[in-house]
Amino acid sequence: MEKVRICIIGGGSRLWAIQFLKDLTLQDKVGAHVVLYDIDKNAALSNEKVANEIFKVNGKSGVLSVSVSDTLAEGLKGSDFVIIAIEPGITDIRKYDLGLPEEYGILQSVGDTTGPGGLMRARRALPLFFDFAREIEKNCPEAWVINYTNPMTLCTSALYKAFPGIKALGCCHEVFHLETFIAEFIASKRGIAVPDRREIDIDVSGLNHFTFITKARYKGEDVIPLLREYVNSGKAFPDLTEKGRTLVKEGKWFDCDHLVALKFLKDFDVLGAAGDRHLAEFVPFFLTSDEEAWRYGFVRTPYSYREAEAIRKKNKVYTDEELIAKPSDEEGVDILLSLCGERTLKTNINMPNKGQVRYLGENHIVESNGYITANSIVPIVSTDPSPAVQAMERRIETEQDIALEAIWKNDMDLLFEAFAMDPLVSLHLDKARELFDKMLPLCELRYN
Amino acid sequence: MEKVRICIIGGGSRLWAIQFLKDLTLQDKVGAHVVLYDIDKNAALSNEKVANEIFKVNGKSGVLSVSVSDTLAEGLKGSDFVIIAIEPGITDIRKYDLGLPEEYGILQSVGDTTGPGGLMRARRALPLFFDFAREIEKNCPEAWVINYTNPMTLCTSALYKAFPGIKALGCCHEVFHLETFIAEFIASKRGIAVPDRREIDIDVSGLNHFTFITKARYKGEDVIPLLREYVNSGKAFPDLTEKGRTLVKEGKWFDCDHLVALKFLKDFDVLGAAGDRHLAEFVPFFLTSDEEAWRYGFVRTPYSYREAEAIRKKNKVYTDEELIAKPSDEEGVDILLSLCGERTLKTNINMPNKGQVRYLGENHIVESNGYITANSIVPIVSTDPSPAVQAMERRIETEQDIALEAIWKNDMDLLFEAFAMDPLVSLHLDKARELFDKMLPLCELRYN
Amino acid sequence: MEKVRICIIGGGSRLWAIQFLKDLTLQDKVGAHVVLYDIDKNAALSNEKVANEIFKVNGKSGVLSVSVSDTLAEGLKGSDFVIIAIEPGITDIRKYDLGLPEEYGILQSVGDTTGPGGLMRARRALPLFFDFAREIEKNCPEAWVINYTNPMTLCTSALYKAFPGIKALGCCHEVFHLETFIAEFIASKRGIAVPDRREIDIDVSGLNHFTFITKARYKGEDVIPLLREYVNSGKAFPDLTEKGRTLVKEGKWFDCDHLVALKFLKDFDVLGAAGDRHLAEFVPFFLTSDEEAWRYGFVRTPYSYREAEAIRKKNKVYTDEELIAKPSDEEGVDILLSLCGERTLKTNINMPNKGQVRYLGENHIVESNGYITANSIVPIVSTDPSPAVQAMERRIETEQDIALEAIWKNDMDLLFEAFAMDPLVSLHLDKARELFDKMLPLCELRYN
Amino acid sequence: MEKVRICIIGGGSRLWAIQFLKDLTLQDKVGAHVVLYDIDKNAALSNEKVANEIFKVNGKSGVLSVSVSDTLAEGLKGSDFVIIAIEPGITDIRKYDLGLPEEYGILQSVGDTTGPGGLMRARRALPLFFDFAREIEKNCPEAWVINYTNPMTLCTSALYKAFPGIKALGCCHEVFHLETFIAEFIASKRGIAVPDRREIDIDVSGLNHFTFITKARYKGEDVIPLLREYVNSGKAFPDLTEKGRTLVKEGKWFDCDHLVALKFLKDFDVLGAAGDRHLAEFVPFFLTSDEEAWRYGFVRTPYSYREAEAIRKKNKVYTDEELIAKPSDEEGVDILLSLCGERTLKTNINMPNKGQVRYLGENHIVESNGYITANSIVPIVSTDPSPAVQAMERRIETEQDIALEAIWKNDMDLLFEAFAMDPLVSLHLDKARELFDKMLPLCELRYN
Repeated sequence: MEKVRICIIGGGSRLWAIQFLKDLTLQDKVGAHVVLYDIDKNAALSNEKVANEIFKVNGKSGVLSVSVSDTLAEGLKGSDFVIIAIEPGITDIRKYDLGLPEEYGILQSVGDTTGPGGLMRARRALPLFFDFAREIEKNCPEAWVINYTNPMTLCTSALYKAFPGIKALGCCHEVFHLETFIAEFIASKRGIAVPDRREIDIDVSGLNHFTFITKARYKGEDVIPLLREYVNSGKAFPDLTEKGRTLVKEGKWFDCDHLVALKFLKDFDVLGAAGDRHLAEFVPFFLTSDEEAWRYGFVRTPYSYREAEAIRKKNKVYTDEELIAKPSDEEGVDILLSLCGERTLKTNINMPNKGQVRYLGENHIVESNGYITANSIVPIVSTDPSPAVQAMERRIETEQDIALEAIWKNDMDLLFEAFAMDPLVSLHLDKARELFDKMLPLCELRYN
Repeated sequence: MEKVRICIIGGGSRLWAIQFLKDLTLQDKVGAHVVLYDIDKNAALSNEKVANEIFKVNGKSGVLSVSVSDTLAEGLKGSDFVIIAIEPGITDIRKYDLGLPEEYGILQSVGDTTGPGGLMRARRALPLFFDFAREIEKNCPEAWVINYTNPMTLCTSALYKAFPGIKALGCCHEVFHLETFIAEFIASKRGIAVPDRREIDIDVSGLNHFTFITKARYKGEDVIPLLREYVNSGKAFPDLTEKGRTLVKEGKWFDCDHLVALKFLKDFDVLGAAGDRHLAEFVPFFLTSDEEAWRYGFVRTPYSYREAEAIRKKNKVYTDEELIAKPSDEEGVDILLSLCGERTLKTNINMPNKGQVRYLGENHIVESNGYITANSIVPIVSTDPSPAVQAMERRIETEQDIALEAIWKNDMDLLFEAFAMDPLVSLHLDKARELFDKMLPLCELRYN
Repeated sequence: MEKVRICIIGGGSRLWAIQFLKDLTLQDKVGAHVVLYDIDKNAALSNEKVANEIFKVNGKSGVLSVSVSDTLAEGLKGSDFVIIAIEPGITDIRKYDLGLPEEYGILQSVGDTTGPGGLMRARRALPLFFDFAREIEKNCPEAWVINYTNPMTLCTSALYKAFPGIKALGCCHEVFHLETFIAEFIASKRGIAVPDRREIDIDVSGLNHFTFITKARYKGEDVIPLLREYVNSGKAFPDLTEKGRTLVKEGKWFDCDHLVALKFLKDFDVLGAAGDRHLAEFVPFFLTSDEEAWRYGFVRTPYSYREAEAIRKKNKVYTDEELIAKPSDEEGVDILLSLCGERTLKTNINMPNKGQVRYLGENHIVESNGYITANSIVPIVSTDPSPAVQAMERRIETEQDIALEAIWKNDMDLLFEAFAMDPLVSLHLDKARELFDKMLPLCELRYN
Repeated sequence: MEKVRICIIGGGSRLWAIQFLKDLTLQDKVGAHVVLYDIDKNAALSNEKVANEIFKVNGKSGVLSVSVSDTLAEGLKGSDFVIIAIEPGITDIRKYDLGLPEEYGILQSVGDTTGPGGLMRARRALPLFFDFAREIEKNCPEAWVINYTNPMTLCTSALYKAFPGIKALGCCHEVFHLETFIAEFIASKRGIAVPDRREIDIDVSGLNHFTFITKARYKGEDVIPLLREYVNSGKAFPDLTEKGRTLVKEGKWFDCDHLVALKFLKDFDVLGAAGDRHLAEFVPFFLTSDEEAWRYGFVRTPYSYREAEAIRKKNKVYTDEELIAKPSDEEGVDILLSLCGERTLKTNINMPNKGQVRYLGENHIVESNGYITANSIVPIVSTDPSPAVQAMERRIETEQDIALEAIWKNDMDLLFEAFAMDPLVSLHLDKARELFDKMLPLCELRYN
């Protein structure tokens, strides 16, 4: 059996890395040595222990092995796969990513992808990604690099900027939620059992977290007309204010009923393909007040949750039960198996635009379907959304292009151009500059 | 001497038509018979009288002549030139173009080009322009058509939509103000007399009223660096709040100090090329409150002024003094002379994009320099503004494309897409729809 | 079991239709009723008999059934699939397609795709395809249409020209030969058994019969470097003149050693992806004389062979042995099963360009990989060949665009533009016109 | 009076430089110091003497002055204008540029722009132009650079390749001949006196020496329909074989009746805009034999003429009469005066494509009209020629792109790709390589 070497950058992180390790044990095709690298080495060492237990409990010791590397170079050296899942800067900073804009009336439901919070997070993350790419070029230029870090588009762009020959893709499961939503919708319409989300054959197009489903078929039948009928039925947009209040009270921060995704279908003729909390941040149409967000059934995740969660994860002790691998909905291991030639996979990917998204620029990192075979990922051409949505995408694309260039050149006046034109920042330019000038210094903390 | 036939659609209008007739008397190259057509025939008849007096007073009776036509077809038949300068719908409607959006917090300084007011004005005007184009195709397909009506881009687009073979251009003098501003700036910097605005050799690029000066030379020397130095000097953006208050008090609605145009240079690296009242309506950065507009030295023109002005023009009686022609700053007659082969002219024009504005779509009506010779207008390639400004232009372009298509097809759901994505309409979609639904019925008045 | 309706236009043809019917019997997923339509109804009736025997011999009577239709409309009505495999015009005309150009020194190895012969064949075929498309629009607009007729690109383009909403693709197996060639090449290099051609994972890009393999992997490993080494080894281009002579003597018209495909790799940096007889017709580099063609190991198929073959097929009687289905290398049934949702398939397809081939124009029919699922075919983005080959492709593309427009408008002066610019027609324009004027009248025979 | 500094690279050349100096004396707007630089310093010194005499005879000593520089750097230092008019390599080499291809049946009428001769000339010239550009960047980066050297497109491209910020244009008067031809044509049609060529208002589009007149107006009237009628009259293409023979006998190598330019209008719907000797070299349609060229009234310039001419120029002694300046048809001085702000000028220019030629690539050096004012040249958007001609242009564009890249990288295998795809090289690839390998070593002579 082939044994591949996988380096996980951010290998000390709890949630995602542990699940990936479990998923690895659920297949019999490839063996792997996993190297954990993290600037918090203790976290990596702690995960190493958990990994060994997982491998043992699930009967894969030997076939799967794990170690911790002292340096990034050492971790990368000879790797076949590199996985990047980091938190750029300490969690505390997110307090300001959310809080400072709020002082100016700017509400963000997530704050890690776009908007003032997303741009500042990019400001912190991208210099790290430039470094990652340079080290990959030196130590494992042929490795496949899978990025899970947000802001997804900008982080993945940064990898290509610093090492244009990199074989990198960005992975995101937001689209899966909509597949599930459509599966449930069909089931309820037809009175059948809910199909597996993979049975919904979708065409997806756009920028990560701001993607759209341009086609959707179930058993060869187009389901978009059914959805269009639904959004025009007068029943698709109930007032969910009470539900919103409850979500806040109960701390259910990630719930949504996809009313934002559906509203795009109603008003702009194409269904959103990410959770409402993400979609809402790319346009000025939904986060106009907490009440208006609640009415659409979603809420803002507060910093207090992020803080508590960081502590919880850090102190997490895995029970025996929790070490046993069960199938997850993540596709990281499926992608890896496909690249090893053990299967083929069609799924949504974030990669440089080579024609798959016609209304966006060449080489910009775009999200569409891709087709994965041994040592190859090729993008599948996507269908265009409506002209209005194309224009919204292009606006975000330019913001991202400018932000990437600004951070690459360390030109903060240029970064302000991106900041000012963000759809959530509808401020007088003088106020926008004031906010920008307050937020920027906090990014300097990242090297502490 | 050649004698050309000129049909003026909106020939009953006072201000613009009268000045054009005076300008005609100031040249000796071509004779002309002018046909005035107006749905308000009395207004046309009244102007006919004034025209005859002007021709007489300025010694051009015979060489220049005038008549009124009963129908549009009759007016157009055999014309060499068609000039369109109309008010679409009665003046009263503008009250709602401005007032209804204001109820939702949307401030418009002009309200005739873009924003909710501009789109509703387009809704009223475009069906008329579709008709004009069809009649021109039937009666004078080879005529040169000069449009002065706002929304300039959409009205001119409508002509090409209904008759793609039309030879039409849109004319606008906003750019001249900036040329004058630059001339004065140089004079003050250099301690020289203020040069004629025509001595400032500019490159202009964008969409009408949202254009930018990408190059500016005086006697071969690039003056942009001087302006850039100035906007970064700390002196370019004084607090003009008091001046703004005074403008309102004294009813000086059209004054501006070009702080908005300069702010574009400071924050987005390219100088605006229209009056601040226009520029401010295409972005969410300046009309955030009256106070913030005043601070930048410009004010909103109220409906009350439009109403008073309409009455004043209607009742206008010309004194002998006022009948004497003096050179104006308008270029209509210069364009006409150039098309007759009597001179050549380089000036800013609004025409279908054939490559002159690279960042906008093919055939969209764009503003750039053009070169005019006998029976020919060819666009000159313009220089690109900064990426951020290109993105702002593209956003407006898409809004206009959607609006044109929507009005062409009479698809009001599609028109709402344009409305919702307008930069001034930063409302929750539910509120945007509410406002749209209130404004739309008022457009029906146009046929009364 | 689902039972689909399949209409075969050209259902009287022997070779291809019979093989397709056999392939149908080799699967258990879908039932089918096949309707044969042919302007030669007797040929269709004759095939109907053979079809019934095939279904019986292979144990599929009932599951598979067959009939003959009197009219095209009747045949199409309610079809789920339409297959087009016709010979446009009587075989005799091909004599002139080949013979007249030869009088002017123009040698064609096939003469059905491009060059003077291909263009005249297009002149005969396209009006039929315009009709097919219109009938499909009327009778089965949702059917999937699979075209096998040459000139493939132009015939498939004609379908979209006459019915833009058609769901049509062009199918061609030329690419398979190169997959097999690569499989054999690897086997000989590595001393391993020859892999199945489907194990060679290729990226294909271009226009039908003038396609290129821009990537090729076996078990994840890039094999292009091996091939590049080979073409630069001094051993890849032996003098095959003797072989060529032997092929002619023995009437082996279809043999080739892929020296033309390899020469493209050597001189233009990308491997050809069709048989040499096809590739050679798109450039002026190989058919310069019979001797130079033979030296590269391929020969021209003479008209005498086409004539004999037509008679042979017409009189063909199937032995019992020949009625038994064996797996073929054709993919028609695989595509059909995929579109029915019974499997997925990645294969080369000819469809409108939506971004899959970046260097060719939007909507031109291009060849690249596609991904087929239930009721869906989506193109996969292809990799660009070298700039020189891109330019060669674009030249052919324009020739095809002009030819399509010319035949659509029945503008023979415009068709001459396509004719004159064909790479094989390197004549003085006066001579080119002379040849064109001789060839054109023969196309009129098609309606007899 | 302003006094500018002009450096002439190739300042020892006789014909062109002397005429330019005379033209300088015919204006009173600017003074100039001219620096002559030539690798043949004696030639420059000889010209210096002639220049001083010209200035004296024409009464401009003092206002105009001249010197010779020892080095290129010294010559360029502080220059406002740089003029490049060189012969790359010794004249003898042209013998092989023409003679070797002829051995393979390739006929070239000029051999300095395209075809095998043009490419080899580029091989010799471009390294010099890379050097010129680097020196200009160092010594006078703001100077306007006017190139007259062929191959015009590639030489001018080389300047931008080595110094992208250069302000360079290529100047060529071929278009003027067609203006004159049209002026004469109109005169004969109308029975009027022949208008000045400048009164023919043309739109020109393409690549230098392969340009097309897409619009032509005289006093505002479109004259293309008249020309189209003429080429379809049956009288436009008389057999000029006898004339051709006479031209050869009498050594009149540059004469032409524009039958090639007109044939483009007849067969490809757009009029050629260069002399027939140039147009014919870009397509395989005219230089098929000497007899076929003669029939169209043009002949090939033999090497013997180039040789005799080189000797004649070298030994040229100017008579007093010849020193007196008379107006020429060259525009070099007009361009210079326009750039100094003394006039404006619209004329054809070769500059990087910024949108003026839509069917060619961004930044490729293209020929179209330009508008020249003080320190500024802006391209005017040109009208598209027919699709067939666009395709011919694109083919040449790619050949030039590949050649530029190949010479820049000194990659002779890549240069062969350009060579093989040249329209005049319709050889089997083996023969093409043989010819290429014979021609290439001769280019090495250039540094002797």
